[in-house]
Amino acid sequence: MAVGRKVLTLDSVNPCVKGTRLPTLAPLLERASEIQRQLAQGEEKPFREVIWCHSGDPHAAGQRPITFLRQVAAICAYPELLHADSMPRDAKQRASRILQELHGSSAGACNMEYITTAVPQTVTHYLERRDGGIRCNPRNIITCGGITRAIVDFLSLVVNEQDPSRAGVLLLVPGHPLFADAIALAGAVAVQYHLDEEGGWALDIGEIRRVLGQARGYCTPKVLCVINPGDPTGEPCAEQDVLQLAAQERLLLLADEVHQESMFTPDSPFLSFKRVLCELGPVVSSVVQLISFYSVSKGFAPDADLSQTPGVPVCQAYRQSEANTETQVVLSDLAHNAQLTQEVFSQVPGIHCNPVQGAMYSFPRIQIPARAVQEAQALGLEPDLFFCQKLLEATGIVLAPGSTFGQCLGTHHVRVTLLPPVKTLRIVLQTIADFHSAFLQRYS
Amino acid sequence: MAVGRKVLTLDSVNPCVKGTRLPTLAPLLERASEIQRQLAQGEEKPFREVIWCHSGDPHAAGQRPITFLRQVAAICAYPELLHADSMPRDAKQRASRILQELHGSSAGACNMEYITTAVPQTVTHYLERRDGGIRCNPRNIITCGGITRAIVDFLSLVVNEQDPSRAGVLLLVPGHPLFADAIALAGAVAVQYHLDEEGGWALDIGEIRRVLGQARGYCTPKVLCVINPGDPTGEPCAEQDVLQLAAQERLLLLADEVHQESMFTPDSPFLSFKRVLCELGPVVSSVVQLISFYSVSKGFAPDADLSQTPGVPVCQAYRQSEANTETQVVLSDLAHNAQLTQEVFSQVPGIHCNPVQGAMYSFPRIQIPARAVQEAQALGLEPDLFFCQKLLEATGIVLAPGSTFGQCLGTHHVRVTLLPPVKTLRIVLQTIADFHSAFLQRYS
Repeated sequence: MAVGRKVLTLDSVNPCVKGTRLPTLAPLLERASEIQRQLAQGEEKPFREVIWCHSGDPHAAGQRPITFLRQVAAICAYPELLHADSMPRDAKQRASRILQELHGSSAGACNMEYITTAVPQTVTHYLERRDGGIRCNPRNIITCGGITRAIVDFLSLVVNEQDPSRAGVLLLVPGHPLFADAIALAGAVAVQYHLDEEGGWALDIGEIRRVLGQARGYCTPKVLCVINPGDPTGEPCAEQDVLQLAAQERLLLLADEVHQESMFTPDSPFLSFKRVLCELGPVVSSVVQLISFYSVSKGFAPDADLSQTPGVPVCQAYRQSEANTETQVVLSDLAHNAQLTQEVFSQVPGIHCNPVQGAMYSFPRIQIPARAVQEAQALGLEPDLFFCQKLLEATGIVLAPGSTFGQCLGTHHVRVTLLPPVKTLRIVLQTIADFHSAFLQRYS
Repeated sequence: MAVGRKVLTLDSVNPCVKGTRLPTLAPLLERASEIQRQLAQGEEKPFREVIWCHSGDPHAAGQRPITFLRQVAAICAYPELLHADSMPRDAKQRASRILQELHGSSAGACNMEYITTAVPQTVTHYLERRDGGIRCNPRNIITCGGITRAIVDFLSLVVNEQDPSRAGVLLLVPGHPLFADAIALAGAVAVQYHLDEEGGWALDIGEIRRVLGQARGYCTPKVLCVINPGDPTGEPCAEQDVLQLAAQERLLLLADEVHQESMFTPDSPFLSFKRVLCELGPVVSSVVQLISFYSVSKGFAPDADLSQTPGVPVCQAYRQSEANTETQVVLSDLAHNAQLTQEVFSQVPGIHCNPVQGAMYSFPRIQIPARAVQEAQALGLEPDLFFCQKLLEATGIVLAPGSTFGQCLGTHHVRVTLLPPVKTLRIVLQTIADFHSAFLQRYS
């Protein structure tokens, strides 16, 4: 037997897989973990702790889970708790109802029927309330094990090997990086369109038409990806002209709406693409195909019926006063933090930050001097990653560089989470502002 | 706008998706659910309840979850239980240790580092114990959200659009139907090979060589799928000649080993493909690439460290005396049920059942008279599905027809779970035997 005759090698691997990118963020996060270990071992640093402000992981950032949902989850995991004094009656009632619907009364069973019938039914009720009574068919609800993977699956549906022209997918910039990878994995062609930063990160129909025209030269555009509200930009975008464009240009709309519960400005409640589509009437709604993604990993659930708990069953936990109080606290903290971010950054020369209406991030544009850009390029780094590395080493703060999400050529951004407690965020923002001033000075 | 100009239609959908099959089982299960509802509404039937014996869902079949693991899961879901009298000290200690490793001390956070670092470390310790000390590198452990999906992903790696000859995947018959669908979704070519029923469902190297030779005429065989122990056949198959064949024929070995904890004959403990490969030495082990799948959804965890609990964290729950007692009960029940199945079916003319050593099913061959085959074909049904339908209507027992898993042309089988309580299984087996005798008489 010859050596090295392995089946799977870097040469032989599916080229779609090679089209995905190593996350820009990974080395930064590894370094942050290393610093955290060094601090724990007593090493001296100019700061006392690593503060993780790069991600949208609510509990990691210190957000409290909703008590009621956790009680229900615990009882479902260990039904003996139905008899425990430590659990309140309403949680026991809810868990008891859920357990009755599960095969073998166990949340550990496969429960295919529960997942394919009971959960879609619950989601349907939720969506009908959300959309002001617009009807929802539970057969249109599909439960998935994580949307990162589900987006690849749905994109794969429109890819057709027998089609001589490859399928094109319109991809927003800036946008969550999972889309670019999903498009690569599905074997489709990514067609970038830019959001309008000066217009508060709005979707720009003219820009979409422009890139569509170009793309038709080298692929068949079939899908338009949108994020509502935006990640990392926070801007809602369910507007009639987007759907009219999808109808005219024959685009399937793939809407990431995982941050729908995090709209925190009182004058703009969440508006779903589904609702806007239905309200446009059958001329448009009979033509446009819409796939909307929702996740239980982001929600803190104003309606407390689809929330961030381990395991499936708690999807059936409904509105409950205690949960509503807790979620109101989360929402008003987010609104306050968005306001605070705006106030602090607007004072800083060289930082420009649009107001944030939803999701859980700000995405300020930061000035990076030419000398810093050159130094970064000499190191083979994106300039904003270079900035984030310097910030981490000097302050312990971890931000996500804008290049992770895409940005207009020559502009630089960072994504800052709104999730930390107000007190922490105030210090974080001021530290970023001070560091940026020093950075400007050093490289100008 | 013209009507019907939708992007995604049955004509335009990715042809790989069209290659998957609607599960044969689905209409049978729907009918069984309907009968269950009718019984609940007081309708008269020749039986009093539906008995689900088609699946490998331990808890649905009444198997008890391991208490310790459920306590740990409940505490992780709702850490207030660390202070509850209702929870024992050891479970609190275990949960406390897990929570310390989680971001924000919350099992609801994303916990990427926990999933990509701590869990692989735990799995590594488990595998090293399992394989008699053979070293394991945690970088080779990949956590996935369900192996049904993960198998498609791994198969996709070996598919290469630029390759003029499509990738072939050797698929065992009978075997779990998810493989055929995964091969279709990945865009590869399924190449069937048959297990040797007369040899106790053993892998037949001659048969694999024979189909390999034929397949090379129309594809490039790259992957050999095996199930160890078999599903639905229960036969262990980690043998040196399989690995030698993989080395000689340059096949990546994709081993479904999800039932590894369910080997219940004392004289044949589970032997992993990894262990056999390492023991063959570097001439073979440096050439053969092996991907082995393990699932927390099947295990009842003899070592109690990877088990059937909702949510991730309990993967870190280690050996513990109570858990060991409970798992011993599960294993000895399975062994007893396998023996009982053998005894009952061996008395029945027209039913042939190989002894079962592992997993959680028997897969007896059942005689179906020519007249029944004709009647089934007239209805457009597989003869074994026809048998299962008649059995359901007459007795309320739900079995999985052999055609779901594949079988030699002209033979017919059913998959019967070993999971029900002994008392229930005894009645189920005798009822199947009696019904089959009546069926033979009616159609001969």
